[in-house]
Amino acid sequence: MTHTRFDTTCIGNAIVDVISKVDDAFLEREQLVKNSMNLIDEARAEELYGHMGAAVEISGGSAGNTAAGVASLGGSSNYIGKVKDDQLGAIFAHDIRALGVNFETTKAADGPATARSFILVTPDAHRTMNTYLGACVELSPEDINPEEIASSQVTYMEGYLWDPEGGKAAFRKAADISHEAGQRVSLTLSDSFCVDRYRNEFKEFINGGVDILFANEDEIKSLYQTDDLAAAIDAVRGQVELACVTRSAEGSVIIEGDTSIEIAADTSIEVVDTTGAGDLYAAGFLYGFTNGRSLAESGAIASIAAAEVISHVGARPEKDLKELIKARL
Amino acid sequence: MTHTRFDTTCIGNAIVDVISKVDDAFLEREQLVKNSMNLIDEARAEELYGHMGAAVEISGGSAGNTAAGVASLGGSSNYIGKVKDDQLGAIFAHDIRALGVNFETTKAADGPATARSFILVTPDAHRTMNTYLGACVELSPEDINPEEIASSQVTYMEGYLWDPEGGKAAFRKAADISHEAGQRVSLTLSDSFCVDRYRNEFKEFINGGVDILFANEDEIKSLYQTDDLAAAIDAVRGQVELACVTRSAEGSVIIEGDTSIEIAADTSIEVVDTTGAGDLYAAGFLYGFTNGRSLAESGAIASIAAAEVISHVGARPEKDLKELIKARL
Repeated sequence: MTHTRFDTTCIGNAIVDVISKVDDAFLEREQLVKNSMNLIDEARAEELYGHMGAAVEISGGSAGNTAAGVASLGGSSNYIGKVKDDQLGAIFAHDIRALGVNFETTKAADGPATARSFILVTPDAHRTMNTYLGACVELSPEDINPEEIASSQVTYMEGYLWDPEGGKAAFRKAADISHEAGQRVSLTLSDSFCVDRYRNEFKEFINGGVDILFANEDEIKSLYQTDDLAAAIDAVRGQVELACVTRSAEGSVIIEGDTSIEIAADTSIEVVDTTGAGDLYAAGFLYGFTNGRSLAESGAIASIAAAEVISHVGARPEKDLKELIKARL
Repeated sequence: MTHTRFDTTCIGNAIVDVISKVDDAFLEREQLVKNSMNLIDEARAEELYGHMGAAVEISGGSAGNTAAGVASLGGSSNYIGKVKDDQLGAIFAHDIRALGVNFETTKAADGPATARSFILVTPDAHRTMNTYLGACVELSPEDINPEEIASSQVTYMEGYLWDPEGGKAAFRKAADISHEAGQRVSLTLSDSFCVDRYRNEFKEFINGGVDILFANEDEIKSLYQTDDLAAAIDAVRGQVELACVTRSAEGSVIIEGDTSIEIAADTSIEVVDTTGAGDLYAAGFLYGFTNGRSLAESGAIASIAAAEVISHVGARPEKDLKELIKARL
C-alpha cells in the first residue's frame, strides 16, 4: 500500500486573473473568438490591458482553481506551478495557501513576471481568456517533487501545461512518478484550441498515460476530429479508465469501460461568469473519487461545485464547498 | 470667469484594496474594531495578510473611489495620488484611467510599495480596513499641478491625507490654489478615528478653508465632541457653505446656512459590502452640484450612487451611474 499524503496534486500554469466586463463589440474590435483561450506575448498584454476597462484581480489558473476546489471540499490538496517573486506572485501564493492547499514550488527570482490572464466576461456570462504566460515558462522537471507525486492518489494536469516547453517535460516526469508509485494520472484537455495545437501528442499521451480524462464536448470532438459527440465518446472508450465529458447546462457523461453514467447539471443558480466551470467540475469529481464516493456521487459533487463557481465572478469557490455538499447530498 | 477643465479634482491616498470575507471572531482575534480604518506598518501588513483568507484585489482609495464615481456619472474628473512604479501601481493607474479619470501624478521610482488596504468584510456587510500607506507617504506639494486645481470647480480631499506628512502639505497647497482661482474646496472627514487624530487641525482648517464638508454621523459628532447629532449639526452650521452629513440607511442631511435638507437613502438594494458608501455619496453630490443640479437633486444622485456601490463587493461603481441616474431621476 502506497503512503497517501494528498488526495490530489494539481499541476498547471500559475496565473492571476484580471477580470473585466466587456460587450460583444469589444471582442469583435479585438478580433477575439468568444470562449477561447488565446496565448499573448507581453506587448499584446500591454496593448489589450490598455484597451480594457477597470478590472478585478483574483488568483486563478485552471489547475490552481481545481486545487482550491478540492481543498474547499475538505480534500487534501497539493499544487505545483511557477510564479515570480513579485507582487502578483505573492498574491497567488497567499490565496492558494489561504484555502488550505499545499504549495511549495520555488518562485522564480528573475525572468518574466507572474503570469496573468485577461478574462473578458460578456453579458451572456461567457468568458474569453487572453493569457500572458510570463513566469510559467520557467516551470521545469526540477519543480516536480517525487515524494509529493508518489504520495498523491491522483496527479492532475492541465493541457495548457503543454504550451510552455518546461511544463510539458514536468508533466511527463510527474506522470511517470505517479504510475511507478501505483497512483493515477489525470488530464484535462483544457480548451479546443489547445487540443488543436497538440492533438497527436495528446492522443499518444492519453493512450496508456492517462487514467482519468476530463474534456468538454468541444474538446473531445476536437481530439477525435468529429462533429458527432457519440462518435467521440466511442473513440475515448477504453483509452482511459474513466473519461468525464462535460456539456454545460446539459450535464456530463462519465464513461467507464462499456458503460456511460449521465450526470445532471445543477441548473438552480443564475450564471454570472462561466470561468472555472470545468476546473471545479474536475475538483468535485476527483474529491469524490479519492474519498470513496461512487462515480454517480462524484459526478453529483462535480455538478454542485461547478454551479457554485459560475454563480459569481471569479474562478474559485466563494462558498465553503464542504458545507454546500453536506447540505445537498 | 475662471477656465473650467474639471468638475472635480480628488486628492487622496492611492490604494489597492485587498478584500476578504471574514467572520466576527476573526476581528476579535486580530483585536480590530469593526468599521474602523487602522493604519498598519509593513510588518503588521505581512502578519495580517498571512492570517487572512483568499482575497480579491480591486483599486480603491477613498478619493479615488469618488473620482471614479464622478467619471461614471459623466462628470469631468481628475485625480492626484501617489503609487509606486510596481505591479499594484500599474493596476491602480490602469483602473482609474479606464474609468475616464485624468491621472497624471508621477509614480515613485523607489521607496515603499504601492499602498494597500486589507478590507475585512463581515457577514453583516460592514467593513474593517487596515491600511499600509506605502508609497502614499511620498506624495508632496510638488505633485499638485496648479493648472489642474485652478481649473477644477471643486477640489475634494480626504481627511486620510492628513496621515502622511507630505499629503497634508499637498492638501494645503491645493486648497490655497483653488481659493485663489475662485473655486471651491471640499473635505471629507473620512473616519471618526481620523478625526480623533487631527481634531483641532481639522476644525481650524474647516473654518475658512473648506466650502463643502462631507461627514458621517460618527465623524461630525467626533469633530465637535458631542453625542448629540443635532448639536453637531448646529456647530457646523455657518462654518462652511455646505455640509453633507450621511446617516447610513437613515439618509443624509444637507446643511446650508440656516436650512437643512433631508435626503432619503436608497434602500431598494441588498447591502453586500458598505465599502465606498461615503465616497460614492460625495461623488454623486459633487457631480450634481458642479453640473447645475439643485441641492435636493444632488442629494438624490448621491443616494443612488452610494446604494449602487454597497450592493456589491468593491468600492467603485460596477454599473454605469450615468445610465442609472437617467433611469431614476
